[in-house]
Amino acid sequence: MDGVKFLGFDVFGTVVDWRSSVARELRPFLERHGLAQLDPAAFADEWRGMYQPSMDPIRRGARPWTRLSVLHRENLETVLGRHGIDAARVGEAELAAITRAWERLDPWPDSVPGLTRLKTRFALGTISNGNIGLMMWLARHGGLPWDVIAGAEATRTYKPQPETYLGTADLLGLQPGECALVAAHNDDLAAARACGFKTAFIPRPAEHGPGQSSDLAAEEAWDVVAEDLTDLARRLGC
Amino acid sequence: MDGVKFLGFDVFGTVVDWRSSVARELRPFLERHGLAQLDPAAFADEWRGMYQPSMDPIRRGARPWTRLSVLHRENLETVLGRHGIDAARVGEAELAAITRAWERLDPWPDSVPGLTRLKTRFALGTISNGNIGLMMWLARHGGLPWDVIAGAEATRTYKPQPETYLGTADLLGLQPGECALVAAHNDDLAAARACGFKTAFIPRPAEHGPGQSSDLAAEEAWDVVAEDLTDLARRLGC
Repeated sequence: MDGVKFLGFDVFGTVVDWRSSVARELRPFLERHGLAQLDPAAFADEWRGMYQPSMDPIRRGARPWTRLSVLHRENLETVLGRHGIDAARVGEAELAAITRAWERLDPWPDSVPGLTRLKTRFALGTISNGNIGLMMWLARHGGLPWDVIAGAEATRTYKPQPETYLGTADLLGLQPGECALVAAHNDDLAAARACGFKTAFIPRPAEHGPGQSSDLAAEEAWDVVAEDLTDLARRLGC
Repeated sequence: MDGVKFLGFDVFGTVVDWRSSVARELRPFLERHGLAQLDPAAFADEWRGMYQPSMDPIRRGARPWTRLSVLHRENLETVLGRHGIDAARVGEAELAAITRAWERLDPWPDSVPGLTRLKTRFALGTISNGNIGLMMWLARHGGLPWDVIAGAEATRTYKPQPETYLGTADLLGLQPGECALVAAHNDDLAAARACGFKTAFIPRPAEHGPGQSSDLAAEEAWDVVAEDLTDLARRLGC
């Protein structure tokens, strides 16, 4: 990691526990709308399951730039429809409020201590597909000490498009080799490495709940592999 | 200020003392290049004097979006030329290093304590014409606890274009009336108010050195007028 000045973080899954947090907020919402029989965590999975597909038309240029909060809202309406709930009957205020559950995701226990230590030596920022406002409110919710919110909306691209990584480096006046991506997802790291970024993997074996089968371990020889963000700080001498 | 969730800050002059800081870095640079007879603060004024004019072609669409760090560099070469120094003979490394003096501006003494208190109750961000990287390194230099870097580069416009203020509110998912601009410059506040922002003025009577004649006091009935940023925190109940 010699020469690295900036650590860019994947956020959903790597820094925050989206599944438990969204499920917690979904439980009373589902109960109010006659869906108490549904498992809120399974509903969260279904909602998050539309995350990657909903960005695809934007990645390939078939849809103009649209921020993730808008996609989250559209995807919620689709999932509600699958379960027989007409979003129009839920009402604007409640749909907006539950969509903002994505701004209230709790950090993993090691995230704030680890980031605080890493910040003493590196500039820290987001390289997330989350939009700037979502990332700002999320940082305030969890006390995430970012120096900058970069990534998707700042570059108007969605990972794993190269421009999300390269555009972030350019915004900060850095060469790609002066930047590292920290992520719990091997495919994100592979895309960053292809752009010349350094790479750091930490596993998040509970991101997808008890049955998780993906990203349990590093699948390439990443520049650093750590147990969590405090271990990453220790390995990087912070 | 009822209903305000986000305080956006002008930075150069309002939060940091650009003149003394740039002059401090210029002194050895000017000495090395045979300009020891020049007053570094006067050179800083001359450099900063090209700031507004250099953004004008971009504001009116005659030049494509160009970030402030590039304008700073161009303006430096122009000012050096006026004093008989050929920038090409100074060399790339030194020109780049001195241009980065704008990333090492010291906060006014009340800035960090005031921002730290304001952050307990409001989301805080930059609405500066400084670009994202410049603002990030500046925040790290001075310990400025921003939640987000917004403003010019995030909206690809330069204040006082309405889109710099309105685009920042939109990025954060807020209405203009949920945002306030904090600035030491009456014209900046007037532009923000015209967009529906709330406004807070603090004087910075030493921004331009001992002879300052502008912005010594509030020139309109801004929503809040405070002595400095700690006084602003007190007036806003933080």
